[in-house]
Amino acid sequence: MRLIDGGVTASEGFFAAGISCGIKKNGKKDLAIVCSEDLAAAAGVFTTNIVKGHSLQVTMEHIKSGYATAIVINSGNANACVGEQGYRDAKEIAELTAPYLECMPENILVGSTGVIGVPLNMEVIKPAIEQLVSEMSPDGGHDALEAIMTTDTVPKEIAIEFNIQGKPVVIGGMAKGSGMIHPQMATLIGVITTDINISRGLLQKALSEVVSHTFNRVSIDGDTSVCDMVVILANGMADNPPIINEDKDYKRFKDAINYVCTELARMIAMDGEGATKFVEIIAEGAASEKDAYNIVSAVAKSPLVKTALFGEDANWGRILNAAGYSGASFNPEKVDIYLGNLLVCKNGAAVAFDEAKAKSILQQKNIVITLKLKEGKFSDRMWTCDLSYDYVKINGSYRT
Amino acid sequence: MRLIDGGVTASEGFFAAGISCGIKKNGKKDLAIVCSEDLAAAAGVFTTNIVKGHSLQVTMEHIKSGYATAIVINSGNANACVGEQGYRDAKEIAELTAPYLECMPENILVGSTGVIGVPLNMEVIKPAIEQLVSEMSPDGGHDALEAIMTTDTVPKEIAIEFNIQGKPVVIGGMAKGSGMIHPQMATLIGVITTDINISRGLLQKALSEVVSHTFNRVSIDGDTSVCDMVVILANGMADNPPIINEDKDYKRFKDAINYVCTELARMIAMDGEGATKFVEIIAEGAASEKDAYNIVSAVAKSPLVKTALFGEDANWGRILNAAGYSGASFNPEKVDIYLGNLLVCKNGAAVAFDEAKAKSILQQKNIVITLKLKEGKFSDRMWTCDLSYDYVKINGSYRT
Repeated sequence: MRLIDGGVTASEGFFAAGISCGIKKNGKKDLAIVCSEDLAAAAGVFTTNIVKGHSLQVTMEHIKSGYATAIVINSGNANACVGEQGYRDAKEIAELTAPYLECMPENILVGSTGVIGVPLNMEVIKPAIEQLVSEMSPDGGHDALEAIMTTDTVPKEIAIEFNIQGKPVVIGGMAKGSGMIHPQMATLIGVITTDINISRGLLQKALSEVVSHTFNRVSIDGDTSVCDMVVILANGMADNPPIINEDKDYKRFKDAINYVCTELARMIAMDGEGATKFVEIIAEGAASEKDAYNIVSAVAKSPLVKTALFGEDANWGRILNAAGYSGASFNPEKVDIYLGNLLVCKNGAAVAFDEAKAKSILQQKNIVITLKLKEGKFSDRMWTCDLSYDYVKINGSYRT
Repeated sequence: MRLIDGGVTASEGFFAAGISCGIKKNGKKDLAIVCSEDLAAAAGVFTTNIVKGHSLQVTMEHIKSGYATAIVINSGNANACVGEQGYRDAKEIAELTAPYLECMPENILVGSTGVIGVPLNMEVIKPAIEQLVSEMSPDGGHDALEAIMTTDTVPKEIAIEFNIQGKPVVIGGMAKGSGMIHPQMATLIGVITTDINISRGLLQKALSEVVSHTFNRVSIDGDTSVCDMVVILANGMADNPPIINEDKDYKRFKDAINYVCTELARMIAMDGEGATKFVEIIAEGAASEKDAYNIVSAVAKSPLVKTALFGEDANWGRILNAAGYSGASFNPEKVDIYLGNLLVCKNGAAVAFDEAKAKSILQQKNIVITLKLKEGKFSDRMWTCDLSYDYVKINGSYRT
């Protein structure tokens, strides 16, 4: 497995484009398409928020067939909570795009990200679709990525190549999202493309399992959005013997997609709104899987932990405190806490530690916090960032 | 029922003092006592965090007898997560105080609030106890309150008088807490005193029920602390016929204590760390009590809602979004949302509203957000505040 250049168009038979059609007032790109030459097997993971964006609802319907040709995504507007018009608008985007790609509207997926509660400006989107399709190219992945970004400050894409029975296979992906990020869903918009030949069922299985411990282990602010999805298209053009069983080829594919999703998820946490630090929270030795998850989730969400990290303050009491209210069952008097490799709390109590060393660890851009519970064999980890003035600034004035 | 001056020493037979003994480095008051002339019936509500401060653990033990003479509280140090020494220190404070009050150490309750993980400086506390007791007076309530404050910017106290069968009865209370505040516990340190004559069992019942929908309906940051408690002492000196049944006198008492706790809880939210606004979140028409609670809790905790309020941005989509991931069951397409009395979302979709009017509502210091779910007859409400730069500032550098 090796890293290669590019993102969603790195795989054989994928085209993409990203243009500015006028949804964003600042003139930045706001309309993207990612398209497969042939109809591709398609799978997706969607927000668990019971409020669901209209575009996302259309995609959930269309993907039920198991196949898709393309996905059209706009940024600058979530197309959510605007009533029936929102559903009709998303449908219309699919209907207007399909003829250009010579496919059925049901084979077009639709995504939207941005502000909630404002109707899509279809007057600028409708005439732009022809241009969008005409600009598609095998080098268009990066433009498409730019067109789905909102408060992201860094583009997030990756591509890898590996072999299945001697055939080179590529997986490429892009993701957006830096606020309103927390598990219980896909937590963002991610599009992954691959030329692998795999059954639709195994594609969904691999994606669901991988997302559960990659994208669903990122928390920026504990808010889960209504529009978030990860979609994968697999067009089979790598011409490998089709993967139809959970054999070693499936395992190789799953490892590869796990790598892609892990890297994209970490990029999301690193680019969290206002983030100055990337933080990995690890719980080891929990009595159950759920306990381990509850602990990393509570610590990653705690505003007190996150502001202390921003302030580079080794305030480990807040970490233990968050674990304590997480709902996990454990004996606080057995917990050890490490900042990096520095033990700061042993058996639930303070230990004398070198404050200068703690400070130097907390001054780094990448921080690992480990809680050792000594209760059992379960572990989990979550990626997050600190809570800074800029988070407040970005979100205090997002809509206006 | 009428408001009167004072706080914890407003009731007959209560004395208090607050002094500076040297725990806080800035010389502010840091050691408080509230004492009843006679042994008083005592009841308490304690944090549900499984990590519990050592002083709180001692109080939970001592209060089991149902009676107490006094409570000694220090600020500037939580006496939490320091190992067995922390428990011994809290015990020693009770043991050193008891002889001056001619009671058993088990009748002394102990509280601590401040930084976690640092041993109490007993060298300054031990010699200060004699002075603390000697300074007790019927006017000392305000000094005691000052001595339990940490990041609070406003002292929080209240006293009321009402009649039970012609006898005037007083309830006074004080509270501290402006960060690390969220339900699942008492969420703060509160001390309530009353001269009413009531059975110990009914005292606990009234306190538990009242706290559940007053102090436990305040969320500043979603973090629940390890030291938090509300304790009530009732010394019977009002000489009313003893309340031993859930009769109309009990009802009057419960209404009165509900008023005291409501006012103190609202003061906590108003003085939330960095808060510029007091916000009441109301859910009406939920299908169950739990749904109503989940919704107000999720909205009150959402960093995206709270930063929008700080930015005076009518971003109601974030409110619906938070309700959507709260775990409550409801149909998003039936939800109406009001900012103050302004309808901003009808049946889950945007309505045209006057942005200038929305802005003027959000510019006020007190904001009410109402979600009408139209699912059933259950409602709930929670008090919170906005999330500002100052919250980040205060908590980025608390320990150092």
